[in-house]
Amino acid sequence: MPNRIKIIKNILESNDTIAAKNKDRFLTANILTLNLIASPGAGKTSLVEQTLKFLSNKLRIAVINGDISTSLDTERAAKAGASALQINTGGECHLDALMLQKALDNFNLGDFDLLIVENVGNLVCPSSFDLGTQFTVVVASVPEGDDKPYKYPGTYLNADVVILNKIDLSPYVPFDKGNFYNGVRLLNSAAKIFEVSCLHGDGLQYWCAWITSQIELLQQNRYHQ
Amino acid sequence: MPNRIKIIKNILESNDTIAAKNKDRFLTANILTLNLIASPGAGKTSLVEQTLKFLSNKLRIAVINGDISTSLDTERAAKAGASALQINTGGECHLDALMLQKALDNFNLGDFDLLIVENVGNLVCPSSFDLGTQFTVVVASVPEGDDKPYKYPGTYLNADVVILNKIDLSPYVPFDKGNFYNGVRLLNSAAKIFEVSCLHGDGLQYWCAWITSQIELLQQNRYHQ
Repeated sequence: MPNRIKIIKNILESNDTIAAKNKDRFLTANILTLNLIASPGAGKTSLVEQTLKFLSNKLRIAVINGDISTSLDTERAAKAGASALQINTGGECHLDALMLQKALDNFNLGDFDLLIVENVGNLVCPSSFDLGTQFTVVVASVPEGDDKPYKYPGTYLNADVVILNKIDLSPYVPFDKGNFYNGVRLLNSAAKIFEVSCLHGDGLQYWCAWITSQIELLQQNRYHQ
Repeated sequence: MPNRIKIIKNILESNDTIAAKNKDRFLTANILTLNLIASPGAGKTSLVEQTLKFLSNKLRIAVINGDISTSLDTERAAKAGASALQINTGGECHLDALMLQKALDNFNLGDFDLLIVENVGNLVCPSSFDLGTQFTVVVASVPEGDDKPYKYPGTYLNADVVILNKIDLSPYVPFDKGNFYNGVRLLNSAAKIFEVSCLHGDGLQYWCAWITSQIELLQQNRYHQ
């Protein structure tokens, strides 16, 4: 096996071991955890803000933001009412399970119903690193174009949920919704898809209802254990 | 020095050695070379199409597209009139100098005035890998938001040119142009900035005039050698 491939394999195996530990921690704390992956500017932080607006009076929500160098997104999440923490990756292009493990030490997870992890804005690298979260949520946006599932298959293959954001821009840009949906479905027959506008608030009630239903499921399973 | 950092340092040093060879090849062939870096969906391929539309009757243009798995962008460049070649990175999140070196063997560089290298859609990783091209062009787009220079400083720091695309969407999304320009200028006082709409054709004449002037400069220097 060539050296470089061996090194990458070792890094990923080590990551998976820590991700499994994170997962156990989330299960024990009975907390729903989401890993948000998207291109820069697709609207991850706006989605976090809107989710907090809809749900922060019903749920106890924590947010962890991965960013290369700034705390801008964390400040937005905190302002919107979350217990928010920043991971500065120091130039790294993705979060990994160890970074998240260290960040988790700053929370008492039992105090929360929902943890949203906002990954670094990147449609390639984050999808290779399992964080141990329960669901991976890919945020796409209409002005990025309808070809993204075809061009970034690894990311769409691993998505449990796809959010199609900025649908309010549909009248102004060429975007073939059928082609986008076909691309997602070619790779991933199971992913839930929600169309939203984080700018105007459209469609977010369905996304938030899905979150609430998943938390209810988690809690029911807990009671039946 | 920790092992991982040493490995990355070795990879980058080896990359720089090959990039220097690519650079020599470009100088010898007297060809202008551009490395396009952007988020997925910012409009790199649309910029290539528009540039070809404006310049392909005056200049001999080649395009090399980096993509994780598809040849969609290369097909668009070929359709727009370029001699186009695809590099499939096989999942890699950026082009490196060696990938480009191998691709160059498919061209007689002396037959062209301009080579546009369209990097993988990623605002983080490509900026670490010099390809040996003369100019790095970062394509931003209005719907991505005005905070991108602050959040992806490595990419903006290394830009020779910043294209702000999709200015036609300005009326429909919050975008503080002053904040965007300040972010670019904080990192980079020298970068040329062009505002364009690749969808409607606005502003592209200035970008194309800049390309033409750079090629004239190259050729003048050549005559004076």
